[in-house]
Amino acid sequence: MQPFMDSDFLLQSDTARILYHDAAKEMPIIDYHCHLSPKEIAQNKRFENITDLMLGGDHYKWRAMLSWGVPEELIRGDGDPKEKFIAYADALSHAIGNPLYHWTHLELQRVFGVDTVLNAKTAPEIYDYTSDLLQRDEYRAQALIDKFNVDYLCTTDDPVDDLGYHQAIAAESRMKARVLPAFRPDKAVNVDQAGFADYIARLSQAAGMPIENTADVLTALERRVEYFHACGARVSDHALNTAPYAEPSFKQADKAFQAAMTGGEIKKKHADAYRTVLLAGLGGMYAQRGWVQQYHIAALRNNNTAMFHRYGPDVGFDSILDEPVAYNLSRLMDLQDSQGQLPKTILYSLNPADNYAIGTMLGNFQQSGIRGKIQMGSAWWFQDQKSGMEDQLKTLANLGVLGTFVGMLTDSRSFISYPRHEYFRRILCNLIGQWVENGEYPNDIDFLKQMVRDICYNNAKEYFGI
Amino acid sequence: MQPFMDSDFLLQSDTARILYHDAAKEMPIIDYHCHLSPKEIAQNKRFENITDLMLGGDHYKWRAMLSWGVPEELIRGDGDPKEKFIAYADALSHAIGNPLYHWTHLELQRVFGVDTVLNAKTAPEIYDYTSDLLQRDEYRAQALIDKFNVDYLCTTDDPVDDLGYHQAIAAESRMKARVLPAFRPDKAVNVDQAGFADYIARLSQAAGMPIENTADVLTALERRVEYFHACGARVSDHALNTAPYAEPSFKQADKAFQAAMTGGEIKKKHADAYRTVLLAGLGGMYAQRGWVQQYHIAALRNNNTAMFHRYGPDVGFDSILDEPVAYNLSRLMDLQDSQGQLPKTILYSLNPADNYAIGTMLGNFQQSGIRGKIQMGSAWWFQDQKSGMEDQLKTLANLGVLGTFVGMLTDSRSFISYPRHEYFRRILCNLIGQWVENGEYPNDIDFLKQMVRDICYNNAKEYFGI
Amino acid sequence: MQPFMDSDFLLQSDTARILYHDAAKEMPIIDYHCHLSPKEIAQNKRFENITDLMLGGDHYKWRAMLSWGVPEELIRGDGDPKEKFIAYADALSHAIGNPLYHWTHLELQRVFGVDTVLNAKTAPEIYDYTSDLLQRDEYRAQALIDKFNVDYLCTTDDPVDDLGYHQAIAAESRMKARVLPAFRPDKAVNVDQAGFADYIARLSQAAGMPIENTADVLTALERRVEYFHACGARVSDHALNTAPYAEPSFKQADKAFQAAMTGGEIKKKHADAYRTVLLAGLGGMYAQRGWVQQYHIAALRNNNTAMFHRYGPDVGFDSILDEPVAYNLSRLMDLQDSQGQLPKTILYSLNPADNYAIGTMLGNFQQSGIRGKIQMGSAWWFQDQKSGMEDQLKTLANLGVLGTFVGMLTDSRSFISYPRHEYFRRILCNLIGQWVENGEYPNDIDFLKQMVRDICYNNAKEYFGI
Repeated sequence: MQPFMDSDFLLQSDTARILYHDAAKEMPIIDYHCHLSPKEIAQNKRFENITDLMLGGDHYKWRAMLSWGVPEELIRGDGDPKEKFIAYADALSHAIGNPLYHWTHLELQRVFGVDTVLNAKTAPEIYDYTSDLLQRDEYRAQALIDKFNVDYLCTTDDPVDDLGYHQAIAAESRMKARVLPAFRPDKAVNVDQAGFADYIARLSQAAGMPIENTADVLTALERRVEYFHACGARVSDHALNTAPYAEPSFKQADKAFQAAMTGGEIKKKHADAYRTVLLAGLGGMYAQRGWVQQYHIAALRNNNTAMFHRYGPDVGFDSILDEPVAYNLSRLMDLQDSQGQLPKTILYSLNPADNYAIGTMLGNFQQSGIRGKIQMGSAWWFQDQKSGMEDQLKTLANLGVLGTFVGMLTDSRSFISYPRHEYFRRILCNLIGQWVENGEYPNDIDFLKQMVRDICYNNAKEYFGI
Repeated sequence: MQPFMDSDFLLQSDTARILYHDAAKEMPIIDYHCHLSPKEIAQNKRFENITDLMLGGDHYKWRAMLSWGVPEELIRGDGDPKEKFIAYADALSHAIGNPLYHWTHLELQRVFGVDTVLNAKTAPEIYDYTSDLLQRDEYRAQALIDKFNVDYLCTTDDPVDDLGYHQAIAAESRMKARVLPAFRPDKAVNVDQAGFADYIARLSQAAGMPIENTADVLTALERRVEYFHACGARVSDHALNTAPYAEPSFKQADKAFQAAMTGGEIKKKHADAYRTVLLAGLGGMYAQRGWVQQYHIAALRNNNTAMFHRYGPDVGFDSILDEPVAYNLSRLMDLQDSQGQLPKTILYSLNPADNYAIGTMLGNFQQSGIRGKIQMGSAWWFQDQKSGMEDQLKTLANLGVLGTFVGMLTDSRSFISYPRHEYFRRILCNLIGQWVENGEYPNDIDFLKQMVRDICYNNAKEYFGI
Repeated sequence: MQPFMDSDFLLQSDTARILYHDAAKEMPIIDYHCHLSPKEIAQNKRFENITDLMLGGDHYKWRAMLSWGVPEELIRGDGDPKEKFIAYADALSHAIGNPLYHWTHLELQRVFGVDTVLNAKTAPEIYDYTSDLLQRDEYRAQALIDKFNVDYLCTTDDPVDDLGYHQAIAAESRMKARVLPAFRPDKAVNVDQAGFADYIARLSQAAGMPIENTADVLTALERRVEYFHACGARVSDHALNTAPYAEPSFKQADKAFQAAMTGGEIKKKHADAYRTVLLAGLGGMYAQRGWVQQYHIAALRNNNTAMFHRYGPDVGFDSILDEPVAYNLSRLMDLQDSQGQLPKTILYSLNPADNYAIGTMLGNFQQSGIRGKIQMGSAWWFQDQKSGMEDQLKTLANLGVLGTFVGMLTDSRSFISYPRHEYFRRILCNLIGQWVENGEYPNDIDFLKQMVRDICYNNAKEYFGI
């Protein structure tokens, strides 16, 4: 029996252990998509206690607690922090098979050097011990990031953001990690969502120009792309839910735009035309600047209306959508490609049933001269666990060239989610090791180490041009 | 090489063997969803021979026989029982990888103590031996159930049923197992299926009230819910095929109702409104009484028209539907939840491609104070085999808190399907054992034994309130 | 550690090794669906070099090269053949986990006796060595096929084809392999695709009759079926993309036909009626003659418009479609079945998310007297790799009777793709071996060998009646 989560955790063969310990472990991290707060980084946030740090904004953990029937005041409410931590520990100990079990213990081990198994009994002592440590400067936000050998991290920012915190970090922080903004124009694309007109007003102000039609929206966004670029951005992000597509008619798009601005009824076909025009136009802006665009597909958000009214979005009431995506996605990407507007693109689907459809979409739009121009995104959100990561890696390997993969990201709101890179690397090394041990690939260890280093770090550095 | 189906069948590690033999095996069974005939239980049916017992109503086995090209008279027809059994044995021996192989041998081992491998050669002797045993009282229906340490079983009953057989069983039988009715109002919900008007007439009679609109249907159903509750029912069941949803307007629903009653054309949008109104209303009735509602989704039934005309439904010509379910299911459950009408709910999909969408739906509607209020149903029907069960367990574990799971049911028409609980328990113990042996979870054997006992029995007892 | 791709490649247990080496390996091949060129077989093509042979028409390999960013002139362009091979070797060495890695090395080993690992460094020497060998007569097209112990191969032919090359092969070649035509009437079925009217003119000529409506199309096709039958055809093939279904009205179908012939707008419902009428009618023709019909479902073709304009179809820009298929497929097959027009049928879906829906569709239409009348097609195209094949085998085994399976085909344009049969056989033997070693099936080695031989060869011979 393998000991619980020791240094060879998840590494089930000699080859796997060599690849991880001698190649993967030492590589720095490029976290090209996360949701850390630039403000909290800039202000070098100090955490009150481990509840603040670990449970403060982590809807994964809240969800597990609610499944265990924990009272709301100990989840999202204003209950006692220590009781919250104990409640979490109790839920966690019954969540065998859940990635939170591994993430949490990696966090305890790597951040605090705590090897104790967390459960309701051990939680009080761990709470006290870690909360003491958190008073030290070496546990403030910037030091936590540096502890994990992060070279770059890309936050997720709205086009109207002035990026003041990014400038402050660049100017003042002594972090090793460079913090870059990323461009997420969802509010400008989602013409049929509440608040669109208000948002356009804010965009108009940020871009310093009036916005009266779809073409103006694109012009305004291009000004902001330009500004983000000057601030170091090299990547955008789109939450698409389903892949939209319609004939890219500005005339049809304007019907949606005008209806949205005046509170009229928006027809689906007009909204789809608007979204298509926006995405095609934005693709061109990204392509021109060598940016990467990310499409996050198949989330079904805010399912619980009562909880949405109480807490707003992103608090643990989202799930997976199961609409067909291949046809529209093909049309959208072909539109971009045929107009020379298809940038480097990463496709993520939240639904593992889409893995093969997405994985084969890549090959339709690869391009001479760019290794892995179109990428299959690393296992995302609900798939971001051992079997989900293995499935994504196997799918990509079966359908494409694994050696071009840009690897892992955290997609996290937490300052201590970086062990998820370690988790990914262990799974990657174990998979390759298993193939080699089975005689399916040659045991050329230097070549394999280089491939592992590339997937862990070098490919991303090249791909994002940072 | 592991011997064929011995006492360590499917248990591939020491931890797995300890968990099964020292914890899982001894737990009684709560079979909270099956299709056993209350009449046959009440009358304590005696089986003529093993064909009558094993093949009498089991469309799984008929399906395998037809795939093997067996003549129809030896499947559903009036062929010689012994020849039928031999034909089944012949088909089975070529069905390597099919769960019938394991189920059948478990049935032979556990019910009759027969360890011989079944095939066309051994079938005649096994037929004779078992048919002799079946003449004894200890092989009649009630004794067969008690042989498997069943504490409770829930049949599947129509709201118009007078539950006379249930009362007879409760009054007269000496079984250990308590036999409870379950409420399956599909015929009242499926406004667009043939026979609706006739069914409403029967419901009207059973409820003792006229039914003239949708509201009346709900009132009549509530009377029957009340009656079923008095007879011990604590669970309902809905076969939804696709998840329906429309604005829950009684006015729209009444259009469907009136059309159905007068033989007019029923528009889909009206039928969906009717179904939504019915399901929301029924949810409230269940929630108020602490019942559990079961949604069985994604079956495509009666695909073979010729066979349907010849034999009717549920004889082996059903398959899996692949329509999107997430959006409608989210809206339907949110409607129930926002009106305080969401009861404890078990979601089953027949399509394993839905596993992740369903598995993440749970978390949207969990509730403080109830551990695992929303459950992902155990692998169902075509998924009810080793890899299907492993997938369901891994999905649930990855996305929720496995320790809250209410575990296995048979969903069977057969009096000897109880070894499927054993099958499930072995798979569960093997999976947990494997995790522990790999160092992915701590080897806290007492804790793990308790979790196994909970999943096998205690959770269901608590959840169903029986 | 298992050596790289030695004689026990993929065989991970003693039972697996016995089954492969003592039963599977020796069986001849029936390649009942491929895309080899009858012309190149008839002319006994000589290959200039390994690039011509291995990369000449293989879009799988082109796709991998483009993913690796190889310049277009070294992929589909007119670059130097040796440089092309080196570029492929370089891409391949980074495509760990891709089936091309195994296929390519099996091809080098089995065709040329080359055991060297292919990469950019070894490629020049391998190029020279193999190109020398290719000058010999024993490396011309017919000898390559015979090298792999092929008994029968079925090409893919258009109904208007005069099958002259097939007649030439039958009359003149000394091959062991018999080369049979297969009937693929897609162009007659796809009423809404460009070129339909021209195609109907060609069909009219081939059938020697005027074609003025849907009924005429069927009559003309039946004449061609008759001709193909006389030339040895026993199998048809349909690329359906999605499963079509509408009420099978000739009147509605004729509306689509007339619109297509006169360049008018074709309504989807009329096109679906046309397709349904055609497929039902063709099914009857196949059924009457004991043919097998193949349905290939869920491809999304020609996604890259620029590349389509440059190179045409089937050059590496296709992917997987994810539309629901179950309902329509059920209706279409039931229509055929209820009219006595359902022939033996093989269902393939390109999307592994369909595996369970497809796998359960079989059982709806199996028939007494024919073992495995409805088949689940072997893992196809993007699924045609180790995990895809294992999934298909496990799905089929779980849902049906594995012993009836007709096994592997190449679906390839390459003269050296026959090692894919070996690949399949190793995977099959390994899977069965694993089950037996785990104690899940009895270790009746003679029975298992026979089942393996049946799946590798005998079942197909019986099923196709050749």
